[in-house]
Amino acid sequence: MIMKKFLNDPETLARDENEGLVLAHSDMLELVGDGIIIRKKPKEKGKVQIVFGQGSGHEPGLNGLIGYGMHDVEVPGGIFACAGADRIYEGIKIAWDMSGNTPVLVLIANHEGDVINNGIAVDMARDEGIDVESVLLYDDIASAPKGEDEKRRGMGGMVFGFKIAGALAEEGKSRDDVAEMTRKTTALTKTLAVAMKPCTHPQTGQPLFELADDELVIGPGVHGEAGPEGPMKLATADEVMDIVAERVLADGDFKKGDDTLVLINGCGSTTLMEMFLLYRRLHQILEKKGIKPFKPLVGNYITTQEMAGFSLTLCKADDEIKRLWAAPANTPYLKVMT
Amino acid sequence: MIMKKFLNDPETLARDENEGLVLAHSDMLELVGDGIIIRKKPKEKGKVQIVFGQGSGHEPGLNGLIGYGMHDVEVPGGIFACAGADRIYEGIKIAWDMSGNTPVLVLIANHEGDVINNGIAVDMARDEGIDVESVLLYDDIASAPKGEDEKRRGMGGMVFGFKIAGALAEEGKSRDDVAEMTRKTTALTKTLAVAMKPCTHPQTGQPLFELADDELVIGPGVHGEAGPEGPMKLATADEVMDIVAERVLADGDFKKGDDTLVLINGCGSTTLMEMFLLYRRLHQILEKKGIKPFKPLVGNYITTQEMAGFSLTLCKADDEIKRLWAAPANTPYLKVMT
Repeated sequence: MIMKKFLNDPETLARDENEGLVLAHSDMLELVGDGIIIRKKPKEKGKVQIVFGQGSGHEPGLNGLIGYGMHDVEVPGGIFACAGADRIYEGIKIAWDMSGNTPVLVLIANHEGDVINNGIAVDMARDEGIDVESVLLYDDIASAPKGEDEKRRGMGGMVFGFKIAGALAEEGKSRDDVAEMTRKTTALTKTLAVAMKPCTHPQTGQPLFELADDELVIGPGVHGEAGPEGPMKLATADEVMDIVAERVLADGDFKKGDDTLVLINGCGSTTLMEMFLLYRRLHQILEKKGIKPFKPLVGNYITTQEMAGFSLTLCKADDEIKRLWAAPANTPYLKVMT
Repeated sequence: MIMKKFLNDPETLARDENEGLVLAHSDMLELVGDGIIIRKKPKEKGKVQIVFGQGSGHEPGLNGLIGYGMHDVEVPGGIFACAGADRIYEGIKIAWDMSGNTPVLVLIANHEGDVINNGIAVDMARDEGIDVESVLLYDDIASAPKGEDEKRRGMGGMVFGFKIAGALAEEGKSRDDVAEMTRKTTALTKTLAVAMKPCTHPQTGQPLFELADDELVIGPGVHGEAGPEGPMKLATADEVMDIVAERVLADGDFKKGDDTLVLINGCGSTTLMEMFLLYRRLHQILEKKGIKPFKPLVGNYITTQEMAGFSLTLCKADDEIKRLWAAPANTPYLKVMT
């Protein structure tokens, strides 16, 4: 099978790439235990450590957002497959030890494998007497109707949860306060994606889905799962953003005068050039509605290999959410300077 | 023609995307005059302003690296086409005015249109009594033999020149000191690229070049210009890095004990996952040779739309180059925190 990617052994792909990530950022990151990534300079003891057990293949998320003001312990799994419960449990133990037995927070991307493996890991840790709590991250409005928000998948908007949780933990807030604010932020976080071209799975060489040459799809998942409405004909950047923004704004109950966090997240091969066109239109829409974007983020944060597409995330933001979003962060692939 | 990109009017593409860039980063950037981008908080008067007139379509370079510690004035041109001399001249005048008539530095990517238009703009500015000097940025070892380095194209390695020039200017060094150090850095900067898949020109809808399904090419330019050796059969990430690193190291006369800056620059649709595999191999190679990577940069900095491929840049670094590379920078798409 011919695949146009730079690859070595498919069996060791996830391990190898995470080793490369840590080598490239060896001033910030360190590998410990069974392929677990920690911060080279951990938080002070007594501060809440944030653990994230997840899948690889979505770089720079979900494994490159570790550092000051974000995650403390990353447990990367295989490509598109959450880490096993035993490794996440090991990650929780490391966090508990590093923090001098401070209550630990586990963030969980709302996908079946992530929920199962993180859930087992949390139970295992509690059996050992570790004080650990988890928060579910969900944001994809295409995957469950309004009112059943906790059935929604975790998508690009998880970045907001990561950031808010990380900023509060860095400030030294209690685990329960961090968890509560992360849940509040997640409930306000609304994402809708668009895909134009599928990607190739880097281990099987197979496309993740199929799309006709003149079609795009609204509402795909981060693994290219089809949207609920099926494909539609290609449209201009402005037309696509009009559709996406309208739905996201409606789901978030936005009103004139609201402030909003904004993420336009590239899926992989969609250029920043295109994302700037999409942001331009979004800005026009928000301006017309009297909604104020606050420090928008435009770029590749949670990708699906070289899929072409983007997602829009909005989060209605009060002063506290804005403050935490703007707080300093220093990770390999998301830095906020004040 | 069906093109799977998010686009509006091809005629206004470059203008529109740069408007989107500035709107998305309106706390850092501002549009003035004829589509010229400046820093919202300019340097103090008396410090050297750095002007860069270039082409669009390579996002986040060449137009998203403006801010503290990098460029001051960006004059973005059309897609893959340098800005016209009159607009670059306008940019130089803005820099001259903003700095209280401090000598100005223009950086020029070594491509024909860039050299011509920037050259004319510099002449126009001098005729007006503006003290302006330019530095040519070149790094692509595939495009001219060693010894004829100034014939080499400007590629990913220009990021090193940008950073070193920007850091010195921010420190308040004289224009001539900044220019001299930027020339020194450029002479040490060596890049070699690899392409696997062409991209589509976002205005014509045509592929920039063609490659068989089982081939890659070593030494393409940033516009997909073919490499001098023609295509070769696909190989693993490790095999490709072995070839590329050997040539770059040879051209840079690296010796055991040397320190080096490192950039693995993604061309567009090559995933960070792949770049981490490539970095891992590079790290092994450097370790074996006793060469020490200093704060490597791995990601998309100067792209060619959704081309698949990467470039490797190395720059033999003394203590001063390392210090300037590590100095703080705050631009939309390159941030260095200390």
